[in-house]
Amino acid sequence: MSGLTGSQIVAGRESRGGLETFRAHDPRDGAELPGEFHEATTDEIDRALDAARHAHESWRRAPRESRARLLEAIAAEIEAIGEILTARATAETGLPAARLEAERGRTVGQLRLFAATVRDGAHLEARIDRALPDRRPLPRPDLRSMMVPLGPVAVFGASNFPLAFSVAGGDTASALAAGCPVVVKGHPAHPGTSELVGRAITRAVAAVEAPAGLFSLLQGRGPAVGEGLVTHPATRAVGFTGSFAGGRALCALAATRAEPIPVFAEMGSVNPVVLLPGALAERGAELATAIAASATLGVGQFCTQPGLLLALAGEATERFAAALAAAFEGAAEAPMLHEGIAAAFAAGCGRLERSGARRVAGAEAARRDSWGRPRLYRADYGEVESREDWHEECFGPSSLLVVCDDAVELLEALGRLPGQLTATLHAGAADEELAASAAERLEERAGRVLFAGVPTGVEVSPAMVHGGPWPASSDARSTSVGTAAVRRFLRPICWQDAPPTRLPPELRDEAAGTLPRLVDGRPEAGPPRT
Amino acid sequence: MSGLTGSQIVAGRESRGGLETFRAHDPRDGAELPGEFHEATTDEIDRALDAARHAHESWRRAPRESRARLLEAIAAEIEAIGEILTARATAETGLPAARLEAERGRTVGQLRLFAATVRDGAHLEARIDRALPDRRPLPRPDLRSMMVPLGPVAVFGASNFPLAFSVAGGDTASALAAGCPVVVKGHPAHPGTSELVGRAITRAVAAVEAPAGLFSLLQGRGPAVGEGLVTHPATRAVGFTGSFAGGRALCALAATRAEPIPVFAEMGSVNPVVLLPGALAERGAELATAIAASATLGVGQFCTQPGLLLALAGEATERFAAALAAAFEGAAEAPMLHEGIAAAFAAGCGRLERSGARRVAGAEAARRDSWGRPRLYRADYGEVESREDWHEECFGPSSLLVVCDDAVELLEALGRLPGQLTATLHAGAADEELAASAAERLEERAGRVLFAGVPTGVEVSPAMVHGGPWPASSDARSTSVGTAAVRRFLRPICWQDAPPTRLPPELRDEAAGTLPRLVDGRPEAGPPRT
Repeated sequence: MSGLTGSQIVAGRESRGGLETFRAHDPRDGAELPGEFHEATTDEIDRALDAARHAHESWRRAPRESRARLLEAIAAEIEAIGEILTARATAETGLPAARLEAERGRTVGQLRLFAATVRDGAHLEARIDRALPDRRPLPRPDLRSMMVPLGPVAVFGASNFPLAFSVAGGDTASALAAGCPVVVKGHPAHPGTSELVGRAITRAVAAVEAPAGLFSLLQGRGPAVGEGLVTHPATRAVGFTGSFAGGRALCALAATRAEPIPVFAEMGSVNPVVLLPGALAERGAELATAIAASATLGVGQFCTQPGLLLALAGEATERFAAALAAAFEGAAEAPMLHEGIAAAFAAGCGRLERSGARRVAGAEAARRDSWGRPRLYRADYGEVESREDWHEECFGPSSLLVVCDDAVELLEALGRLPGQLTATLHAGAADEELAASAAERLEERAGRVLFAGVPTGVEVSPAMVHGGPWPASSDARSTSVGTAAVRRFLRPICWQDAPPTRLPPELRDEAAGTLPRLVDGRPEAGPPRT
Repeated sequence: MSGLTGSQIVAGRESRGGLETFRAHDPRDGAELPGEFHEATTDEIDRALDAARHAHESWRRAPRESRARLLEAIAAEIEAIGEILTARATAETGLPAARLEAERGRTVGQLRLFAATVRDGAHLEARIDRALPDRRPLPRPDLRSMMVPLGPVAVFGASNFPLAFSVAGGDTASALAAGCPVVVKGHPAHPGTSELVGRAITRAVAAVEAPAGLFSLLQGRGPAVGEGLVTHPATRAVGFTGSFAGGRALCALAATRAEPIPVFAEMGSVNPVVLLPGALAERGAELATAIAASATLGVGQFCTQPGLLLALAGEATERFAAALAAAFEGAAEAPMLHEGIAAAFAAGCGRLERSGARRVAGAEAARRDSWGRPRLYRADYGEVESREDWHEECFGPSSLLVVCDDAVELLEALGRLPGQLTATLHAGAADEELAASAAERLEERAGRVLFAGVPTGVEVSPAMVHGGPWPASSDARSTSVGTAAVRRFLRPICWQDAPPTRLPPELRDEAAGTLPRLVDGRPEAGPPRT
């Protein structure tokens, strides 16, 4: 007995209207797991979004403290699920228990950081332009503006972060922090994990006496549930982390609605790592170890996995390449998240091989089709430059080392890269001039530029940017990780000459000092002296 | 001799590659005006955007002071054009010289306000999360993020603000403030005004020794030039103010690009004004005068023109309606901006009449087809509620007064309104309960909610919001007026463990105190003591 009901959660209630069901599988051995999950129906989608719309009517003016407490209650409930969550997530994803425990820590930490963000209130961008009744030729009215929640947000759970970017992940946390109701489409690869977390959120919503419609969880294997969420008239925004094809399809669907809505799709990238000769001469062996570990961590199933390495031809590069190949060869194969991802990885490796890249590590086939064997490819830039796909993401534990003849060729290659979540530059003391040019090109293409370390490991903090120009994300102006992620789900309203009772508390005179505000364009001094 | 060349301005140089030409007309009498304007060619579009892309490569790292000086230089050059600008704009738009002088003041004031915004630096949203090398289990890297310019922006001049929302208007000013190059598509109704302002900008770019590619002006009557700008691969964002049909078409075009880009389209609305019984009893006559003046100001050609008035059946409403009709009857007819707008206004009035609304003021036809006669319509909510179009914008000097039977009907009507730039609520002492419910509904639908006064008159200030849910604008999360408009054209980059020389000056340690920054999530204290 799994304890899982396989139901949808529609505004606090279980619902099992759908006749079609599906099951989860253990990617380590393909075994069927307990629990039969129902596909959400159109009626369930409608009810979830109607409840979300209804909840929004009251919750949009909820005090910041209430929103913060809800986030904290969710964190506590997720902690309280106990070991069953890790056990189920391990069975559904094949990820090690230690990784999932760490991910749970990240998930609850993220919820608590958003709670603190909500309490701080800077995200509301409160602004007051005081009336100037004597201004000539026209007086200025009293203008006060603040961010308010957009309304119901549809969130798509990602398969590669079954906790931190799934049902109670970054998109859900930031949408709730904004004050928006959330309807989650659970990822079909981990429906049991989704159900456990969904129930925890539901308990938290009830515990803080928030409207039940603030949260629903709908499950489904095919595209119908997701399409239903994105096209529903009550949906005001979409958060998605996944493949380029999936993200692009949702963007197109949202753009053709009668009322188009924003889609924040994080669609991955190859996360280029540029290794200049000086850096390779100074610390090539160390870099080989670090990059191979980053590329194969979690079977390479990170949006920030370094899939493309660029270096200049030369002796230091040859030594680095040999060390890197050895490190890839020594990295263990492991089950991938689900069969679809394993098949896409195999196809991606095939594409790399057809593109003229040579496999220099990882020749053996994986033990099972659903496992990922770390693979290193190598090509000269001249061999791949005429192809369109040498910089296409191959999601999994593979990297392509592209060797350029000279600095001109390297800069040309960087100039041809599409948008990236991250770009990393390793330069040594001897590389100054080329490093400057390379950094400029990388900045133009990425949301985050690293000058040390490896791109995997995305800090959840105020300054983090996890986004980037298309196709890394659908909106380069946003981030899906870090406290700034909340801004995606907010819009400004300006109140003109409003009586204090019509204003949100944050914009009333007496709120001075309780949150950061801009008054007449300047930071407000603090609470008025009494 | 008009002194106008009819050329495009492509990165500082005149270009006249197109064989097709068009002329401007004086809407007051239809007379053809001096100057023959060339339609921009595909080659000119390419050259403008290639130059913009090239300019972006160097200018994106330009100091804030350089960007501020460019904006100020543009303001000074626009002032220096002298009387010829007002004369030409009057001839091309039919707007009175005094209005255009005031609009020029607004335009240069706006440019200077954006210069001050750029110097202040808050728009960069600088954030620093300091390294925590001893953190367990993993150290935190040094993370520093800041907003950077998106790249070339295509701006569409609006016909109804030939200065303040045209070639050097709010979109251009905010895009340049963001640090983006701008390619303007001039509105074909005022090509001479556009050319004069475009040349002023060009002189300013040269005067401050900024890259010539920062600004181009392309003229054209048909949709080809605009389509070319929106679909050009170098274009990174679009600013547009105009009709719903035009805005929607640009959004659709941008969404189907290989790399979709954001379109900030401000598409207008009916700007509902809700007049509760207490307010009408207290000050009905005064409101009638103020609303009629707002509705007919500038021949009703404002995005914030109050086109829909809602009141409850009763004696106070009847007295208000009579006073309003008299005020509309007494308002002068005047030339509209161009024949297309006059024809659309006539069509909109016809649609209102077919919808069951009765014309209660402005029965006479206008003196000329291109002139706008102020018109007041009236209907009971029950007469129009079954129609889809009673809340559709009819751009021009007309308003529809919808009388609701009771509070329930009024709230239902408000609940059915699409997104609005503004919504105004006039309540009296006796209206408290209904006012609260009405205000809540209006907030959900508008970017700006007014509790006194009239919606026309949009302050350019930090707290202004000129935007709103679809179809008022294509992105409710943005404003096209006020200092926050700059945010549309920025994206964040995070630098991780960057050496100081790779960081923008604003993110280096020594910049403390020179701009607002968030350090570890808290406002930075100020410059370090030395």
